[in-house]
Amino acid sequence: MVQLYFAPGACSFVPHVLLQASGQAFEPTMVKLHKGEQYSEEYKAINPRSQVPVLVHGGETVTQIVAIVSYLNDLFPAMGYLPSEPLAKARALQTLAWMNNTVHPTFTHIFMPQKFTDDAAAQALLKTYNTQLFAQQLADIDGMVSRAVAQGHAYLAGAALGPLDAYTVTLMRWGSIAGIDPTQFTAAWAHVQKVAALPAVAQVIERERLQLNMMKV
Amino acid sequence: MVQLYFAPGACSFVPHVLLQASGQAFEPTMVKLHKGEQYSEEYKAINPRSQVPVLVHGGETVTQIVAIVSYLNDLFPAMGYLPSEPLAKARALQTLAWMNNTVHPTFTHIFMPQKFTDDAAAQALLKTYNTQLFAQQLADIDGMVSRAVAQGHAYLAGAALGPLDAYTVTLMRWGSIAGIDPTQFTAAWAHVQKVAALPAVAQVIERERLQLNMMKV
Repeated sequence: MVQLYFAPGACSFVPHVLLQASGQAFEPTMVKLHKGEQYSEEYKAINPRSQVPVLVHGGETVTQIVAIVSYLNDLFPAMGYLPSEPLAKARALQTLAWMNNTVHPTFTHIFMPQKFTDDAAAQALLKTYNTQLFAQQLADIDGMVSRAVAQGHAYLAGAALGPLDAYTVTLMRWGSIAGIDPTQFTAAWAHVQKVAALPAVAQVIERERLQLNMMKV
Repeated sequence: MVQLYFAPGACSFVPHVLLQASGQAFEPTMVKLHKGEQYSEEYKAINPRSQVPVLVHGGETVTQIVAIVSYLNDLFPAMGYLPSEPLAKARALQTLAWMNNTVHPTFTHIFMPQKFTDDAAAQALLKTYNTQLFAQQLADIDGMVSRAVAQGHAYLAGAALGPLDAYTVTLMRWGSIAGIDPTQFTAAWAHVQKVAALPAVAQVIERERLQLNMMKV
């Protein structure tokens, strides 16, 4: 059986959603980042980089969102998590890679600036500057959702729920943690509501005990 | 015909190598980043993010290394740029994603710290801190090459030249720009020499006029 190491609210939400949506049994295993469980010898034996997500299948581990998405796409081809046509697949991976190597790290500069400098004053500057950047990037995602809707697509990469939709939920939620009101991104926020209401996604949100708009807290 | 927008020494080296190695004709188009050509209206019409690489095929553009690699892998299946078996493919993508979302941005903090803060003092701190991180990450790559060699693999993902090998050349070269002597990474530096000596790679190095170890300058 597939096992997924996840942390509530982390980007592991993306494979968590894809596994739940597959309808196949899997073992979700929670890693409590706030308790430092990712630094235990036990966890470092699974992932020396102390990160989530980790997918374990047949004793083999896979890390990194892009790689896990590729693996789940091969494992559940009928789900269409990635388009099968080469150009459409490349376009989906293009946005996935951008979310993963640009938007996600922008939030890391806000949420964990100590990963980039040990100077407290510089950390504060990183937070401020990257909050502006993050708002622009969330606006970019809002534009992507608008264009997908205009093209009659139910989801960001076409007709099927995929990694871009789940990542949008995560990134918009992170926006609300950074103090950026996600409801201002009208198209993206409507998409978040729609995706979150899907039974499989709702189950993951329940398991991770997520509140989508943290500004309400 | 496939067209590739590249900048000498940038990460566009990765698809540049894969295209050259394919043996098929393509049109390499140089973008002079130091002259700001990426900010021209003409280039922004091709890539609004003003980045390289951009692949153009049949009038369609693809950006992002991971996406372009996927597309070239589909275009030239006989080259085996990515393994075909799902787990091996996921493992290759795992390392590619890590190089792209972690190692590459670490260098960006050294080379273009102004992307993360507009404060000059904080930029200097980012450079120093991330140079340490970058050296650790290059040591990680060195370990990966050692393990591949120990397993009898000619290249990082197995028997065929692929994106990981080309990215290793780029990242080790960037190390030398950051003042990190790449020759200390014995296995990785030997791999760089071997890859650079392949006729297709040597042609790309010639076209981009690259010196692999910038510490010698």
